[in-house]
Amino acid sequence: MNDVIAQLKNHRSIRKYTAQPVTREQIEDIVGAAQMASSSSNVQAFSVIAVTDQARKDKLEELCGHQSYIGECPVFLVWCGDLSRLKSAAERHLPEQETYEDTTENFIVATVDAALAAQNAAVAAESLGLGIVYIGGIRNRSEEVAELLDLPELAYPVFGMCVGYPDQEPGHRPRLPQQAVLHWNEYDRERSENGVEQYDEVMVKYLRERTGGVKDTPWSVLMAEKLAQPARLHMREFLRRRGFELK
Amino acid sequence: MNDVIAQLKNHRSIRKYTAQPVTREQIEDIVGAAQMASSSSNVQAFSVIAVTDQARKDKLEELCGHQSYIGECPVFLVWCGDLSRLKSAAERHLPEQETYEDTTENFIVATVDAALAAQNAAVAAESLGLGIVYIGGIRNRSEEVAELLDLPELAYPVFGMCVGYPDQEPGHRPRLPQQAVLHWNEYDRERSENGVEQYDEVMVKYLRERTGGVKDTPWSVLMAEKLAQPARLHMREFLRRRGFELK
Repeated sequence: MNDVIAQLKNHRSIRKYTAQPVTREQIEDIVGAAQMASSSSNVQAFSVIAVTDQARKDKLEELCGHQSYIGECPVFLVWCGDLSRLKSAAERHLPEQETYEDTTENFIVATVDAALAAQNAAVAAESLGLGIVYIGGIRNRSEEVAELLDLPELAYPVFGMCVGYPDQEPGHRPRLPQQAVLHWNEYDRERSENGVEQYDEVMVKYLRERTGGVKDTPWSVLMAEKLAQPARLHMREFLRRRGFELK
Repeated sequence: MNDVIAQLKNHRSIRKYTAQPVTREQIEDIVGAAQMASSSSNVQAFSVIAVTDQARKDKLEELCGHQSYIGECPVFLVWCGDLSRLKSAAERHLPEQETYEDTTENFIVATVDAALAAQNAAVAAESLGLGIVYIGGIRNRSEEVAELLDLPELAYPVFGMCVGYPDQEPGHRPRLPQQAVLHWNEYDRERSENGVEQYDEVMVKYLRERTGGVKDTPWSVLMAEKLAQPARLHMREFLRRRGFELK
């Protein structure tokens, strides 16, 4: 295993930070690495808002479900799928023509571009000794986040990311056995299901050890409960209002 | 700049490969790194199909728009957003309960999980001296790809990825100036638009040099043309048939 793969495999989400600041130059370096990620036909359909202003971070903490590490981290990055640059270009150069920014395909392109860039940023940040945690809670109150950050139409917050120097050393959460996610030449349902069964046992043991026996729900039960819970049902309508019709 | 960031910034898509094989162990190592990427609430809503069978690669080459490097690369990875494991868990543990796999929110979760994992895989592969190229063309004929790979309901191919030892040394394609994508505390439209204007000049110069003057269309014109072109309009209906209603 080389150093890069060792670093990737050593990833833990970090939710507590020291007082050491993260510099503007570091963020620029990290985003520079993010920009070199692949992008569908070079559309580069993402933007990132680096939030350092304390009042604004506090507001985002509230909007993301009161996760204290958002207000506490030195820099909070909001990664956005962003087709607004493409739309501006079309309005400027082809004002008479019909455009297709509102398709499901273009929504996928923007979402994937944001995610690939963000993951490069995560890897770059960790290589500098920083810790990060992704914040899906940015989609809790999407409309208010978009307003707070003054996002243009056709840009939407996909996830947030806290960045700071780690002040904790959490353990590694085991992942699904590889047989549950990696298939050879075609999808093998049985192999995958056996993997989930193994994982249930691993996670029960892991949770018991980590919580002193307080928690021991198998992963598949947690997932069943998760799927049975309505979450962020506003997303469809929110995206529509921002110009993503998902046609 | 440290070695990891240097590697990230050195990324180029590789479309030509030597005859050197990529081993099963390498793919397992790469996917192991992919699995350690962050995942929303640990749902791990992705799967990856490693295609090594020549006939199957050839078929995928055809389905992805006849990109020859798909048939030529030693391993072709198909990254899928995959909620099928969650749905199985719900059917097993909460058979009577309504579930929400068909929301836009869960579609975003699955798509992002696949993208974060894939980008870790890309970084891991490049750290081993391998080259990769993402293949959005996997969405050209989605239905046939899903059938060929025997994907279960609630799994969909987000993108492909060719993996192999590089047999070319392409130059770096310049990215948008950072001011077009990185904003501080709130989105700054003017700064972003100025960035696009600068980029148009950079890319005209880059294209002229690379093509001996044959191509010189500014980026924003290419983007306008791209947005004015209907692409993969089947995605909405395809996803619906696979159980992603995007509610």
